[in-house]
Amino acid sequence: MADILSQFDIEFNRIADAMTRHFQSHLPLVNDICGHILFAGGKRIRPLLTVLFGRLCGLDTQELYDLSVTPEYLHAASLLHDDVIDGGEFRRGKPAAYRIWGNKATILAGDFLYARAIHLASSFGRVTIAQAISETVARMAEGEILQLQRIGNTSFDEDAYLQIVEYKTASLIAASCKIGALLADAASTQVAAARNYGHFLGIAFQIIDDALDYTADPKEAGKGIGTDLSEGKLTLPLAAALQMANADDKTWLISTLAQKDLSTDSLLRIQKIIQESGALAYTMNKAHEFIQKAVEGLGIFEDSPIRQQLTRIANFVAERKR
Amino acid sequence: MADILSQFDIEFNRIADAMTRHFQSHLPLVNDICGHILFAGGKRIRPLLTVLFGRLCGLDTQELYDLSVTPEYLHAASLLHDDVIDGGEFRRGKPAAYRIWGNKATILAGDFLYARAIHLASSFGRVTIAQAISETVARMAEGEILQLQRIGNTSFDEDAYLQIVEYKTASLIAASCKIGALLADAASTQVAAARNYGHFLGIAFQIIDDALDYTADPKEAGKGIGTDLSEGKLTLPLAAALQMANADDKTWLISTLAQKDLSTDSLLRIQKIIQESGALAYTMNKAHEFIQKAVEGLGIFEDSPIRQQLTRIANFVAERKR
Repeated sequence: MADILSQFDIEFNRIADAMTRHFQSHLPLVNDICGHILFAGGKRIRPLLTVLFGRLCGLDTQELYDLSVTPEYLHAASLLHDDVIDGGEFRRGKPAAYRIWGNKATILAGDFLYARAIHLASSFGRVTIAQAISETVARMAEGEILQLQRIGNTSFDEDAYLQIVEYKTASLIAASCKIGALLADAASTQVAAARNYGHFLGIAFQIIDDALDYTADPKEAGKGIGTDLSEGKLTLPLAAALQMANADDKTWLISTLAQKDLSTDSLLRIQKIIQESGALAYTMNKAHEFIQKAVEGLGIFEDSPIRQQLTRIANFVAERKR
Repeated sequence: MADILSQFDIEFNRIADAMTRHFQSHLPLVNDICGHILFAGGKRIRPLLTVLFGRLCGLDTQELYDLSVTPEYLHAASLLHDDVIDGGEFRRGKPAAYRIWGNKATILAGDFLYARAIHLASSFGRVTIAQAISETVARMAEGEILQLQRIGNTSFDEDAYLQIVEYKTASLIAASCKIGALLADAASTQVAAARNYGHFLGIAFQIIDDALDYTADPKEAGKGIGTDLSEGKLTLPLAAALQMANADDKTWLISTLAQKDLSTDSLLRIQKIIQESGALAYTMNKAHEFIQKAVEGLGIFEDSPIRQQLTRIANFVAERKR
């Protein structure tokens, strides 16, 4: 992703600047915890989308950058809670916050950051923005709960999977795009198109994330394979493999998935089956269908350099390798 | 408190009705967790204050009841997170939610309920209300973090104590009053007076809560004494006793507080020292000073039956025994 994003260095600098200005608490501890996750080198694609959709709809002001940090704060808040919930040890190459500051302070810092984000979102004189953001937070929490409810479930339901993907990931990316259009006071068809682009891009983004969980090079430092599997999450690549593998592999998969703490050899064989059965191709194809929908929806906007950038961003998400 | 509140049965019924209508999630599990805490017989003084201040400022519509559930949702969300954080076993006479549904689902249900509350608060066409509510959530989280940071701290700082009380409790009661005035489009002096009433009442409410923690009858079912102490929280009654007790008691207190897991006999002696040293009277006197300020601030409103009700509510908070 580095290539396409490097052309947005100016935007990313302005986003980082706004991120620094808006999150401050009175409490040093809160600043430490929030700063730990906010300034650990995330890609900040969500604020970029807010900025680009604001511009696509004719607005280019400092306010747009101020607003753009809202989805990044929400994303960071959700990561703080997720790591407590899932027990993820590392985040963005650093120890997860709860391992440094404990579960309690980390949960509360997440609450603070959610609230700060919504407070910021309600400071632009438009209730539509505050509503879009608070609705998204509710949706994200529901997505995580849906996922939690399916943990350890060995039967796969593609509709349920897509609903989780939509709630926990796509809803925030959709909101990132939508609020840019809302701040620009765009027509409702444009607001809907912005939201739909983010919605489809977000679904594709998460499906590819789930695929990358099985394609990582296990020799690369800090990159496990099958992290989702070890957390009891059955995602599309493995579910597809359970359908598409040959009889021997299928039997082996079913008996292996019933075990806990799989060996590296087992994980490597799962990875191989996902690739050779066509399950990976099937998964990537699904993602590409959503990318296609995201790009097509941009058609209601006049052609412009910004529209082209958004098309390229969608295609880069489709091609990303990590 | 039952006496004074029983005259508001009609209001409480309308509040309960609005609470039922607005919290629903798509997910049964979320509804179960949120319903468990929302409908467990809390006093709902916060929604009542929203309704009364709305009326005091000339508004009396269904919208006012719809808005009034916002602070109760926030309160319930904070209780869901607090019980996970503090490990409190019971809440409103029922097992704490995390003991039934686990920490993970309970944290996420709290996130959902916070978001739902803010979403509701942003549905009345006034960004001022959404801002007041989201600012309050940030403040409440900061208050809990401040408290967390002082846990186990045996030196007492009255300013720090009052800041925690203000953030974690009074900020929400202040917001409950303020949003009623905001929905009524009251003048800014009235909005400020509503906020101040809730602010002072909220501080008094928490100080009295902290006093009640040391005056409970240990024989009464489910009512421990010194719960705060066992959680490492040094509150005003005990801090005052450390100042005001005679030399022998002071020495005993200091050595006893250094221990873990105090015996019932020790707790009863602490209770006795707090009463006999004058520390309890000092604490209640502090609370009454804040009640006085709350009532005085109502002076900017014309005398009316509703203003009198608010005065009586303040006096009842001062006299409450549980």
